[in-house]
Amino acid sequence: MKREELKKVLTDLYQKKITPGQGLETLKTLPYENLDFARLDHHRHLRSGQPEAIFSEGKTTDQLLAIIRKMIAAKSDVLATKLTAEVYKKLKPKLSKKAEYHPASKTLVIRQKKKSPGAGLVVVVSAGTSDIPIAEEAAVTAELFGSQVETIYDIGVAGIHRLLDNTDRLRKARVVVAVAGMDGALASVVGGLIENPVIAVPTSVGYGASFNGVAALLTMLNSCAQGVATVNIDNGFGAGSMAHRINLLGEPDAL
Amino acid sequence: MKREELKKVLTDLYQKKITPGQGLETLKTLPYENLDFARLDHHRHLRSGQPEAIFSEGKTTDQLLAIIRKMIAAKSDVLATKLTAEVYKKLKPKLSKKAEYHPASKTLVIRQKKKSPGAGLVVVVSAGTSDIPIAEEAAVTAELFGSQVETIYDIGVAGIHRLLDNTDRLRKARVVVAVAGMDGALASVVGGLIENPVIAVPTSVGYGASFNGVAALLTMLNSCAQGVATVNIDNGFGAGSMAHRINLLGEPDAL
Amino acid sequence: MKREELKKVLTDLYQKKITPGQGLETLKTLPYENLDFARLDHHRHLRSGQPEAIFSEGKTTDQLLAIIRKMIAAKSDVLATKLTAEVYKKLKPKLSKKAEYHPASKTLVIRQKKKSPGAGLVVVVSAGTSDIPIAEEAAVTAELFGSQVETIYDIGVAGIHRLLDNTDRLRKARVVVAVAGMDGALASVVGGLIENPVIAVPTSVGYGASFNGVAALLTMLNSCAQGVATVNIDNGFGAGSMAHRINLLGEPDAL
Amino acid sequence: MKREELKKVLTDLYQKKITPGQGLETLKTLPYENLDFARLDHHRHLRSGQPEAIFSEGKTTDQLLAIIRKMIAAKSDVLATKLTAEVYKKLKPKLSKKAEYHPASKTLVIRQKKKSPGAGLVVVVSAGTSDIPIAEEAAVTAELFGSQVETIYDIGVAGIHRLLDNTDRLRKARVVVAVAGMDGALASVVGGLIENPVIAVPTSVGYGASFNGVAALLTMLNSCAQGVATVNIDNGFGAGSMAHRINLLGEPDAL
Amino acid sequence: MKREELKKVLTDLYQKKITPGQGLETLKTLPYENLDFARLDHHRHLRSGQPEAIFSEGKTTDQLLAIIRKMIAAKSDVLATKLTAEVYKKLKPKLSKKAEYHPASKTLVIRQKKKSPGAGLVVVVSAGTSDIPIAEEAAVTAELFGSQVETIYDIGVAGIHRLLDNTDRLRKARVVVAVAGMDGALASVVGGLIENPVIAVPTSVGYGASFNGVAALLTMLNSCAQGVATVNIDNGFGAGSMAHRINLLGEPDAL
Amino acid sequence: MKREELKKVLTDLYQKKITPGQGLETLKTLPYENLDFARLDHHRHLRSGQPEAIFSEGKTTDQLLAIIRKMIAAKSDVLATKLTAEVYKKLKPKLSKKAEYHPASKTLVIRQKKKSPGAGLVVVVSAGTSDIPIAEEAAVTAELFGSQVETIYDIGVAGIHRLLDNTDRLRKARVVVAVAGMDGALASVVGGLIENPVIAVPTSVGYGASFNGVAALLTMLNSCAQGVATVNIDNGFGAGSMAHRINLLGEPDAL
Amino acid sequence: MKREELKKVLTDLYQKKITPGQGLETLKTLPYENLDFARLDHHRHLRSGQPEAIFSEGKTTDQLLAIIRKMIAAKSDVLATKLTAEVYKKLKPKLSKKAEYHPASKTLVIRQKKKSPGAGLVVVVSAGTSDIPIAEEAAVTAELFGSQVETIYDIGVAGIHRLLDNTDRLRKARVVVAVAGMDGALASVVGGLIENPVIAVPTSVGYGASFNGVAALLTMLNSCAQGVATVNIDNGFGAGSMAHRINLLGEPDAL
Amino acid sequence: MKREELKKVLTDLYQKKITPGQGLETLKTLPYENLDFARLDHHRHLRSGQPEAIFSEGKTTDQLLAIIRKMIAAKSDVLATKLTAEVYKKLKPKLSKKAEYHPASKTLVIRQKKKSPGAGLVVVVSAGTSDIPIAEEAAVTAELFGSQVETIYDIGVAGIHRLLDNTDRLRKARVVVAVAGMDGALASVVGGLIENPVIAVPTSVGYGASFNGVAALLTMLNSCAQGVATVNIDNGFGAGSMAHRINLLGEPDAL
Repeated sequence: MKREELKKVLTDLYQKKITPGQGLETLKTLPYENLDFARLDHHRHLRSGQPEAIFSEGKTTDQLLAIIRKMIAAKSDVLATKLTAEVYKKLKPKLSKKAEYHPASKTLVIRQKKKSPGAGLVVVVSAGTSDIPIAEEAAVTAELFGSQVETIYDIGVAGIHRLLDNTDRLRKARVVVAVAGMDGALASVVGGLIENPVIAVPTSVGYGASFNGVAALLTMLNSCAQGVATVNIDNGFGAGSMAHRINLLGEPDAL
Repeated sequence: MKREELKKVLTDLYQKKITPGQGLETLKTLPYENLDFARLDHHRHLRSGQPEAIFSEGKTTDQLLAIIRKMIAAKSDVLATKLTAEVYKKLKPKLSKKAEYHPASKTLVIRQKKKSPGAGLVVVVSAGTSDIPIAEEAAVTAELFGSQVETIYDIGVAGIHRLLDNTDRLRKARVVVAVAGMDGALASVVGGLIENPVIAVPTSVGYGASFNGVAALLTMLNSCAQGVATVNIDNGFGAGSMAHRINLLGEPDAL
Repeated sequence: MKREELKKVLTDLYQKKITPGQGLETLKTLPYENLDFARLDHHRHLRSGQPEAIFSEGKTTDQLLAIIRKMIAAKSDVLATKLTAEVYKKLKPKLSKKAEYHPASKTLVIRQKKKSPGAGLVVVVSAGTSDIPIAEEAAVTAELFGSQVETIYDIGVAGIHRLLDNTDRLRKARVVVAVAGMDGALASVVGGLIENPVIAVPTSVGYGASFNGVAALLTMLNSCAQGVATVNIDNGFGAGSMAHRINLLGEPDAL
Repeated sequence: MKREELKKVLTDLYQKKITPGQGLETLKTLPYENLDFARLDHHRHLRSGQPEAIFSEGKTTDQLLAIIRKMIAAKSDVLATKLTAEVYKKLKPKLSKKAEYHPASKTLVIRQKKKSPGAGLVVVVSAGTSDIPIAEEAAVTAELFGSQVETIYDIGVAGIHRLLDNTDRLRKARVVVAVAGMDGALASVVGGLIENPVIAVPTSVGYGASFNGVAALLTMLNSCAQGVATVNIDNGFGAGSMAHRINLLGEPDAL
Repeated sequence: MKREELKKVLTDLYQKKITPGQGLETLKTLPYENLDFARLDHHRHLRSGQPEAIFSEGKTTDQLLAIIRKMIAAKSDVLATKLTAEVYKKLKPKLSKKAEYHPASKTLVIRQKKKSPGAGLVVVVSAGTSDIPIAEEAAVTAELFGSQVETIYDIGVAGIHRLLDNTDRLRKARVVVAVAGMDGALASVVGGLIENPVIAVPTSVGYGASFNGVAALLTMLNSCAQGVATVNIDNGFGAGSMAHRINLLGEPDAL
Repeated sequence: MKREELKKVLTDLYQKKITPGQGLETLKTLPYENLDFARLDHHRHLRSGQPEAIFSEGKTTDQLLAIIRKMIAAKSDVLATKLTAEVYKKLKPKLSKKAEYHPASKTLVIRQKKKSPGAGLVVVVSAGTSDIPIAEEAAVTAELFGSQVETIYDIGVAGIHRLLDNTDRLRKARVVVAVAGMDGALASVVGGLIENPVIAVPTSVGYGASFNGVAALLTMLNSCAQGVATVNIDNGFGAGSMAHRINLLGEPDAL
Repeated sequence: MKREELKKVLTDLYQKKITPGQGLETLKTLPYENLDFARLDHHRHLRSGQPEAIFSEGKTTDQLLAIIRKMIAAKSDVLATKLTAEVYKKLKPKLSKKAEYHPASKTLVIRQKKKSPGAGLVVVVSAGTSDIPIAEEAAVTAELFGSQVETIYDIGVAGIHRLLDNTDRLRKARVVVAVAGMDGALASVVGGLIENPVIAVPTSVGYGASFNGVAALLTMLNSCAQGVATVNIDNGFGAGSMAHRINLLGEPDAL
Repeated sequence: MKREELKKVLTDLYQKKITPGQGLETLKTLPYENLDFARLDHHRHLRSGQPEAIFSEGKTTDQLLAIIRKMIAAKSDVLATKLTAEVYKKLKPKLSKKAEYHPASKTLVIRQKKKSPGAGLVVVVSAGTSDIPIAEEAAVTAELFGSQVETIYDIGVAGIHRLLDNTDRLRKARVVVAVAGMDGALASVVGGLIENPVIAVPTSVGYGASFNGVAALLTMLNSCAQGVATVNIDNGFGAGSMAHRINLLGEPDAL
């Protein structure tokens, strides 16, 4: 897209349809929108088909609302993460009815674009019940971006048969997102069981020497299994987004 | 493979070709080899086409040699990482002439299988010259596993034009491996420039508050760009292996 | 148990009582229960006589209730740890009268199985008064699992005579659980006084450079005394469970 | 000033206008004011033209009020940082109408001195919307101290074109203050784009392995770009003050 | 023993066989030997049947030799850990022929006491080949103290079938010592597979974010499996000693 | 005291005034009081003239009250530290009128013993106004234990003349307690100015990279000045107690 | 410069002097040189007058030599930092006689450009003698870049009079670089004494809880004095470069 | 001393013996000596009777020699710490025969002043044999400064009777220096046993989670015993110097 534009500007110049001054001007106009406190990157959407997500922490209700409205005006799907129930309650009266809020994963979704049938399968697994909120954040993200998503929860390695029983389901996925707190060992075992890539998400579930997810993070970074890469602690969104990008590579028309 | 085997054992039993005792016995025999101090997982190879790599640190010369020989006997490609020049010098007289040692990346490669034309493109980039050894480890790995690999070095963000000039080359890749020490900011900028997945590799290059790569690791884990996942500090092998797995998904016959 | 089952399936196949397809199916059916958000491992109970404990943090009230009900239906003792008084207040109206809540240790116990006389003695000691909640968590756990338990509190090493006076009681125990925050020195001194194993539990009691229990954890990991092993900070449950497993080895019919 | 005073004392002594005892006494009397719980350094103001700022955390409302009153009596501008809205609400009825409270940056400003036209330009940039409060703290500080200030927000490196579009504005500044949380990569890219000094401010924006700003801090300390120095996490005040001091050097009458 | 002595002293006093002064003197004489730079605790040996081990780091060759000789004179078995090959070379000419040096585990053993048939089984497992030295340190210790020991190496969780194949062997052990570096996930999986206690030993094997064993240590401390307790990084001796103490509880004449 | 008792017991035995059994019994009876959840060490008081202080965190109101009452019954002064205003409000109605609560330092004092004129001078200095609560905790402690105490606040090193002006007062002290958060540099400068010992107390005052007092702690531990030793972060009590012990050595009848 | 070029390209296109294809080509050609393993940013030099410095760690001798030669060919001054004496010995025979090696600061300098009289004064101070190497790195850098430089060493705060005696010299500087290890308190005191900016450089001098410079780094980041910003541990080069940039602002023709 | 000088200058001025200019000059001349790379603080010596010690790390042999010679010329005792045997070997030929080198503690002592009988008793204790070098550094320091010193080694708390046997010797000391690595528990127990102050010295003895002395440091900072303050890891010199300062307070003519 951008390349096309650039080519067009240069050709217009060559054909004297525009002046060098106009050329300079045009090259400056990029497809993002300036709200003063935020610059919306609609460009990103055009390029990758993935909406810009809103990281809600540290933003005021007014800022959130302004950003959401601009995204809706731009016909973009809306995904807001780490949005507490308190803030959502304030936003709710001002949002369209299409808005879905997932309290477990603290995500807000407003679907604008007609959903296509969905790319290949992403499987999201969690080690424990307490890891589900982050796993759901990953699942919601990948699904909104256009992946098919299945979830398998509470299959941590301390009861290894619960995990092994699901080997076939894991092997059907193009990408597996493995979500675990505490000892974080799930990613290593899953990585050894399947051939496709695993995105590991440490969670802050645990106490004491879990150090709010550091233990699980280190476990995952040190995974002895091949095909495992890691995102930030509690970063379900990042994992879902990464999984979707990988998933897209497997689509017939990828690249 | 394993599934087939299991089915065969059950069918043989059903047809009374074997006894329950023999069945039990067979189910125990898995395709790995026990060297007492190591269990070679030829199975992994069969399953994913990727050789088991040898992490050389902490292994004696005798152990390394025994493992290499078994892998050669099993017609597997050999990849040994983190192999110092000192240890290689001891191994060299006992290795076949096919053995290639890369001193920069401290990797030993022995190619056994005829090389196929190679899957899609993996591009490995480094922020600085000092990051090249780890970048080479990633490149050697992905190439040996069957990916096409290109490298672009010393394009760190402090001279952003060096990076932007290579945008087109980056966009041609199915996966980009971004290798950086010190501030580790390369991955975030690359992640924002391209649509395909980025595997970020922090390196221990730097001093003081780089804390042997912790600074770069944290930068990468906190990347604001979508589509970035991270492996361990200095884990070029892990990045190359992960990149290849992702790359394979883009092949026409994947899955 | 599992082995028996496996043998039976294979024999049934051999005798054509079932088909290979049925065999495959049966091998998949393991004794755990799937609540979608949790998989209850009744199997663990059958195997070791120890109930699966519920780690309450991060679970919703509904999830807790569903898990408790399934455990009760399975005739298992119920032990929920790290259950705050607030959550308990919500659960209380829906629990049977047998439910005992220990506010100090934040544990909920529902006894289902008739109590046997109890295995050998576990002694739980604490360095200070503020460590009692975690010590109680250990004591409640070991007692529920079937050990005899005695407690000795506030015998930290800064007043060494308080500890030495209890030497005889400590020596009567099969296992000692030593609970301490701050300097965590209790475990080292106890480990040097007795011949039997000591399970050390660091607590988050303290402030400043206690770093929420890290100081005590490191002290215990670096204990110069033989026969000391450590569990996570504030992990009274883990210590009680480990102590009981060790205690069982001393029973006449162990193994 | 102090030097003059000292000279005067010595000359007075030499001319026997005062006795050695009086000399000793005078040398002890320095221009700060003792409130018992605080010693106001009016001297600092005289020396550098910069008011002493009040770090509000850990001070009682009474202490804050007493300090503010003494500063007003001394005709000093007042700047209180890290002042929560709760505390401000208590102070408000007792403050003059000139008091301005900035809730985003948690700063209180009372202007006493007539504003001069303002020294050269300081540009404050932020990576994200959530970093604005700290950026505003820097902007308010530099402006109150006498610099001209412009702000550009939400130009983080994950959408590098948003940053590059502002290159010209950045190059017009004498000093740039770069404020970023999460990956903190903004400072490195800005440092590479401009010739003038960059003051980097890590913020505690983020979660998980951002470790409340440690990730951004390390990134900035490890910046590969020349001309970057760093202040404490969330220390907008320190950055604004430093930027102003540097800015002053560029004034015609500096030094 | 000590109790007997105390009783005897008191009875002797009561019977006026000794004077109060003599009583005081005797109570001071405890069974340890003072080498000025070291106090040998022969008492420990008498009490628990376990020799005092020598931690060799930071001791001079002369100190080591003096300690060894006193232990031999006291008919105690000798176990020196963390003894480098360099130091051993200096000691060797001065040691009896009975001295065995294990270069892998850096342990020196001199057997003095006739070996009894050996208590129940301790199984030592390692995740990788590089963990063997520490695993051997544990095995040598437990064996010298009087346990039967079996070892199973290189059964890390990234190839979970290698571990599962050994389930039966693991279940035959009274105690399992699980030794692992990198992700340290082995202990969690083993803990879930067996009913008896597991002593987890993190090793410093790995690089980057393994932080010399901290990653594995945290994994083990956060193990979700019941019945796991942890010792210091690379503390094979501590694990072997703890395992033996637990093992002894299962002996018919224990307690 | 204890020695006398021991001697008496042995002599009584020798003279057959008591039996060996009675002797054993007596040796067990030490002057502390067992409240089950706490063991009050009145002995400590007898020995050193310093009351046992109550660390209030983690204790219930009932436990606090019981301990206070026992101390009052034992005619001991009462000092409770880290006692929040909330808890004090609950205790207040049940305490004698002699109870003084210091909200700044969160200390409760009940004076029982007639105050002697007081030992030599302890000077407590703070770097900032926000450090005063911890400084007051130190001052209250030293004063209650029997030292004369003076305080000098807000003399941090960023305005070095404020500190230097107080040199004479500092030099008059037998011990100086230096309390500082943030950069913690006060202790180094004071240590270089005076000849007597300095007890350094880091406080958790600050934000960002102060890491709740770790920055100040490290500064103090690394002090280049001689005669500086450090206590835990925010441990005003420990500093006051240590200062008093040192102070006592200077009393004519010390030792 | 770049802007001019861009304008020229666009004008050339408008005037049909070049084709759009040639335009695209030209826009790609930026003034850096590609050595395959390094991209020399001569552009940086043109822009800011400061040579690109070579960070020598992790580069091979051949790489260093190739980079130096290209810089010499480009008429740039050469500055190589963190260059060990061992590596220098290998380089020496191949370097011109103009090359100066400073063993204390491990810097190599080759002057190419005629030295101008030098901008205003930068004063570099060190707390101790052991900090001199890093201080020298800063001094060499600022001097080579064009600043006048004076040094004052061993004036740490534990002997505060040594520092105060130099107040006048410090106040004459446009920028002060304060270099200190251990407690790092120097920067805070200097920052309080002068009005101009201070660049703080923590060094790895010290042991134990200095944690290789972390203590000094934290002290400096938490400095209570205004006008202090910090660079990485041991980053003398960064401080010298930053100081020079600030210094230049004070030159009559700055901006 | 300084006060006297100041008074004299002022009086001289008053009496016109000197001019104000001369007065200014004199006030600048303080009793330290400038070696350019070091400023010797002879003043410190005059003030406290304690020689300035030389921290040898990071100083060249030439620098060390120059400093030593100046100290000898100033009739000061010489104490150099952390001086490796390698460096000493180079210094030795150039030192007087009075120089004593202690290889265990890496200290060099040259006695210049006639030894007085020695102040009260400092007792230095170590937990293990490997802690002796640091304990010796403390002992050498305190003894050189003028204290009587006794040492008791290898009395760590894992064999508590070894420590308790020495209670009487500990109680005779004015100050106890407690040196321990690993679990560092010695200081807490000693602090509880005696009434006089304890200076705790953590050592870097240990491995794994001792983190080079951090474990022992934290234990000591969190000591529950009163009267314990801590110095840096391995800082025997600091402890010896602090102990001597405290010890001096007990001398009849102190203060």
